[in-house]
Order: sequence, then C-alpha cells, then structure tokens
Amino acid sequence: MKRLNMIAFDADDTLWHNETLFRVTQDKFRDLLLPYHDAEWIDKKLYETEMRNLALFGYGIKGFTLSMIETALELSENRIGGDVIQSLLDAAKEMLRAPVEPLPHVKDALDYCRGRFDLMIITKGDLFDQESKIARSGLDEYFKHIEIVSEKNAGVYRDLLDKYELDPKHFLMIGNSLKSDVLPLLELGAGAVHIPYHTTWQHEHVEVDESESKPYHTLEHIGLLPALIEESAWME
Amino acid sequence: MKRLNMIAFDADDTLWHNETLFRVTQDKFRDLLLPYHDAEWIDKKLYETEMRNLALFGYGIKGFTLSMIETALELSENRIGGDVIQSLLDAAKEMLRAPVEPLPHVKDALDYCRGRFDLMIITKGDLFDQESKIARSGLDEYFKHIEIVSEKNAGVYRDLLDKYELDPKHFLMIGNSLKSDVLPLLELGAGAVHIPYHTTWQHEHVEVDESESKPYHTLEHIGLLPALIEESAWME
Repeated sequence: MKRLNMIAFDADDTLWHNETLFRVTQDKFRDLLLPYHDAEWIDKKLYETEMRNLALFGYGIKGFTLSMIETALELSENRIGGDVIQSLLDAAKEMLRAPVEPLPHVKDALDYCRGRFDLMIITKGDLFDQESKIARSGLDEYFKHIEIVSEKNAGVYRDLLDKYELDPKHFLMIGNSLKSDVLPLLELGAGAVHIPYHTTWQHEHVEVDESESKPYHTLEHIGLLPALIEESAWME
Repeated sequence: MKRLNMIAFDADDTLWHNETLFRVTQDKFRDLLLPYHDAEWIDKKLYETEMRNLALFGYGIKGFTLSMIETALELSENRIGGDVIQSLLDAAKEMLRAPVEPLPHVKDALDYCRGRFDLMIITKGDLFDQESKIARSGLDEYFKHIEIVSEKNAGVYRDLLDKYELDPKHFLMIGNSLKSDVLPLLELGAGAVHIPYHTTWQHEHVEVDESESKPYHTLEHIGLLPALIEESAWME
C-alpha cells in the first residue's frame, strides 16, 4: 500500500459506544417479557423478528423498537399491557437522546490523523439518528465527508470511492465489524484496520480462521492507530 | 437565469404518490381509535405527537408508526388492545411495501429532460425507505445523483450545491412543497418550479400571498415541464 489519501472511520462502536445501548434496552425488554416466557426464548424471538423485518425497516433504533413491540405482542399473544408498550417507547426515546461520548483515545487518534490525511465517516443506519449522533459527539469538525449508508458491502464502498474519485490503493477503512468495515474493503483492494468492540451484534458476526495470517491489521484500541501509521508505509 | 446545468426533483408527491399513503393509514388509525374519542380530537392528538417526536424520530413511516402507537396509548389511557397495536404495525408494513407508481407524465417529463440536463433527486426522509422507493419506482436510471437528506432548508441545499460544485444560477429545483422545494432555493438564487400535489401535510403548509407576482413557476402537473423549459431561456 502506498501513501494514504483518505482514512474512513466507522462510527458506532468505533468512535463511540452503540451496541451497549441496544444491549441495555434488550435487557429491559427481557425483564418486561419474563412473565410470559423464559429469557433465552425471548432473546431468540426478538432476534428472529429483527431479521424478518430488516428488509423492511433497515438498521436503527426506530426499526428495533417496532420489532420489540411486535415481539412483545407475539410472545404475550396480544395480552401485553399498554404500560409495557409505553415502556418500550420510552426506552426508544432514551436511546435516541443518549449522550454520545467518544470512546477512549478517539480524540487523540483523530488529532494525529487530521492534517496528515483527509478523514471521513462511513456509517450504516438511520439517517436522522446518525446525523444527530455525529452532531452530539462533537467530532464532526474532524471529517471532510460524512456518508450515511443503508448497507455496507463491496458495491456500496465501490460507489463511494467512485463518487469521491478515490483509488482503493490509497484508502484505509477503520472499524469494529469484520463483516461491514474490513472484508468488503479487502475485496476492493483497499486497506482495513479492525478494532474489535467488546461486544458484537449477532448479525455482524463472521467466523475467521485465527490460524491464518490476515491481510488486515487488528488493534486493541484506536489509541494504537498513530503508531501503526508511523510503522507503515502509509505516509511515504 | 442562464442555461441550466442540473435539474433536481423532489421525490414524494412529485415523482410518485406518498402523502396519500399516510392519509389512508391515518384513516385506519382514526377508525381504530373511534371507540375512545371523536375523529377531530384523534387527528389533533396524532399531529401533536408527530410534531413533539419530530426532533427525535425525523420524517418517515417508522417514526409515524411509533407516533401512532404512542397516541393510541395516550387516547385509550393504555387500555388499547394488543390487536389494535398489531393492526398499526401491519399498516406500517403495508406502507413500506406499497408499490411505487410514478405519477402521470413523470416518465415523459424525465425522458425530455434526460440528455438535455443532468438530473438529480433531492428527497427528505428515512434513508432506507427512500432508497427502497427509488428502486421500486424504476426511475433511478434517470438520475446522476440521488441525495436523501434529513431536512430541506437553505443550509442543506447550499451544502449540496457546494458538494457538486453547482452554481445556483444554473440550478433548478422541482417539487410539490413551497416550504421545502421552492422557498429555500429562491433564497440561494436558484430557480424553482412548484407543482402542487392535491394534498399537503399540515407541517409542510405555508401561507402565500396569491396577489403578489411570484419569483418561481407553478405548473398544474409535471407534464407541462418540457413546454416551460422550451419557453424559458434555460437551454440557451
């Protein structure tokens, strides 16, 4: 890989916490439904509903909330109380209003990268919610471009590279999801850095053979990014 | 105005029906809630809930559905049955799956414009739903750029013009909403054509003094656009 022109960052669980918020809400959901079923079954049915609705709702808090309500009706055979549905709406609003705190080391890493490279965000999900989170994070000033997409695959990344006339050989993507932030980039000949988050949504999980050498870098946290860049040939 | 470089079209209620779909669902909602309140009060409370939630949910079917559920709980003091909530979820899915038929004359107008100008869509709303509608409409091949934004105001349009390095003097926007598709463009010095739809969401309504001469064109339907372009100096 030659000198980088652009570094793109995933946002949720790369620049700030996100999955944790969903897990906390899912814990509340499980507690509310325990009078009807056991915990494991509740989790299973919620995930099934989410997957069934993904093609209609896309990713994001609003779709997740509609799926929680649908699952609550299904698991209770429509006997669920209005107060429980109201609790789910309240939980959704709490998620949408939650403070967006950058993860540790994010600001240091971005300070290092800014000035050396152009930076962009490529994030998947609900347009309105993602824009709101970027604004609340206070990080938007670091980024030349912000792209909110409905799905992250090689085709979508190729369209973005074309749009900004970027050569994949000079492009690096950084994110917590192998499936969404790493593998599609490698397919296009771009570089990728994987920074795992402590928890991954089941839907984003891919199996990787740990014994093989990998054509991408893995960092324990984003604070290690400047050292990786210094060691690599990305600034030559 | 000199020769046009780019014509941008609003999508909902300009290229295809949209508000009608919301009205049909709102009629269902009213019928379901009539056991609790009268029609006028139900409409009023739903609109109040939508406006209260707009800053959190943004525009689109998913946010509208969450607002319907919240209003149903409020108007019934949480006594609403699970079967009614399920009906609202079903209505939402029906909206999300509804066929997207271009309005009359849309294809003829686009056929005329294509080749003469670059065309783009600028539409407001839910990213996933809008992308899906553009794909279902079969019209995406006409457009060089597609921009889905969370709000349409002068600042957002200015950012788009900057992004594509477009001079407002050579830019024309076409849409059904004076508030979203016409007035912000005039503010920037761009051209605008207003093509009213037979019904306008209360939130998009603005008062216009009909006695004043207007600095934009109004057409009865999009089929009249080619003639307007021929008469104007937009191709010189």
